[in-house]
Amino acid sequence: MVEVYDHERVDYLLAEENMRIIQSAGVFAFSLDAVLLANFTYVPIKQGEIMDLCTGNGVIPLLLSKRSFANMTGVEIQERLFDMAKRNVKLNHLEDQINMIHGDLKDMAKLLGHGKFDLVTCNPPYFNTPHKREQNENDYFTIARHEICCTLDDVIAASSKLVRSGGKISIVHRPNRLVELITLFKKYQVEPKRLRFVYPRQGKEANTILIEGIKDGKSDMKILPPLYCYDENGVYTKELEEIVYGRK
Amino acid sequence: MVEVYDHERVDYLLAEENMRIIQSAGVFAFSLDAVLLANFTYVPIKQGEIMDLCTGNGVIPLLLSKRSFANMTGVEIQERLFDMAKRNVKLNHLEDQINMIHGDLKDMAKLLGHGKFDLVTCNPPYFNTPHKREQNENDYFTIARHEICCTLDDVIAASSKLVRSGGKISIVHRPNRLVELITLFKKYQVEPKRLRFVYPRQGKEANTILIEGIKDGKSDMKILPPLYCYDENGVYTKELEEIVYGRK
Repeated sequence: MVEVYDHERVDYLLAEENMRIIQSAGVFAFSLDAVLLANFTYVPIKQGEIMDLCTGNGVIPLLLSKRSFANMTGVEIQERLFDMAKRNVKLNHLEDQINMIHGDLKDMAKLLGHGKFDLVTCNPPYFNTPHKREQNENDYFTIARHEICCTLDDVIAASSKLVRSGGKISIVHRPNRLVELITLFKKYQVEPKRLRFVYPRQGKEANTILIEGIKDGKSDMKILPPLYCYDENGVYTKELEEIVYGRK
Repeated sequence: MVEVYDHERVDYLLAEENMRIIQSAGVFAFSLDAVLLANFTYVPIKQGEIMDLCTGNGVIPLLLSKRSFANMTGVEIQERLFDMAKRNVKLNHLEDQINMIHGDLKDMAKLLGHGKFDLVTCNPPYFNTPHKREQNENDYFTIARHEICCTLDDVIAASSKLVRSGGKISIVHRPNRLVELITLFKKYQVEPKRLRFVYPRQGKEANTILIEGIKDGKSDMKILPPLYCYDENGVYTKELEEIVYGRK
């Protein structure tokens, strides 16, 4: 039995018809970006250790568990979200594969050891808003969306400590942070290797970036084909539809 | 009268029907990348100073002169190419607008002064080949394509010295040098602002990048819509056709 609290709802985890996820409009609901990151990320399939920082309600480990038998750990600093993530693991009977930790990503390398993970994923807060008034009024969203509990530097520093040499770090973010991401990857000995840009539709600028780096990797960079979200009629493109709803 | 030497030919400068360019299969022929860079670059229209480093036969200033009344300077280290560039200026009666210098880009800031240019463009050598045997056997091509006379660091350092604060630097290169380009832009106080990726066709990885930065600019980055070169039938896409042959 998994409890579902007031104001929460249980959704299908889109692409996975037999997978369910607890969300809450007022607390946390996963975004398309999390789905895109899970789709973009290379995962160790048979075994290994995967870490998801800023896991929220645990959507990324849930999605990755469909493609990988690796052990997964999610870290969430907000207790209410951590609790939701834990119940999501239980709801999907994944307690043997996914472990949720309530804590600060900055403490994880000390707690779990350096270089213990083959892959670190993160859908971090996007906005480094300097002014209180520009922040989201709902505290749950404020922390999930703004760099209040962790900066992008904290995220990449923690990821670099957690991942083994040769292991991967996979991040989703906004284009205006691309330069900073690449700079931070280099600062923490992570070589950017794959980039994918997500465009709302043809003829528009990208609004999302997916970037993967390899700890201590050699210099090389592949720019993947662009991903368009909507076609000229405003409906999901075939590619996005397959990512979100699965191949029919 | 402009002399055209043996082994040289006079081509139409594609998009501009009344413009001609001297090339030579054995010495230098401009590439699509130069045309893409000229198309990508924002130019000051009515007045200003534009510098083109590694100008080759001068194709970029020739193309930009169709969109801008700014004064243009091209620098080429290879005497044979410099000579070709000078004749191309004369052939198109652009002596009043375009000045060609035979010299090393590393000396230009000392020669011409710091911060005197509103825009610096460059289609630099792409390959930092360490082994002699991997270099092109033709010396003209070797120098044009390999980082023998200048490294990418030299190019960005020189560009940063030449451009004024708030001025633009516009470069075309290969995706595997993107991380280095962004790192060097930051090293020399040039903020990357616009990126465009060129894909040979849909579903393929990008093979060319266009990047523009602003000296002392504020952090911000736009990822422009992708540019595809060929359609599924292997012919130029409408967009590339317009860039290369002009709008009909």
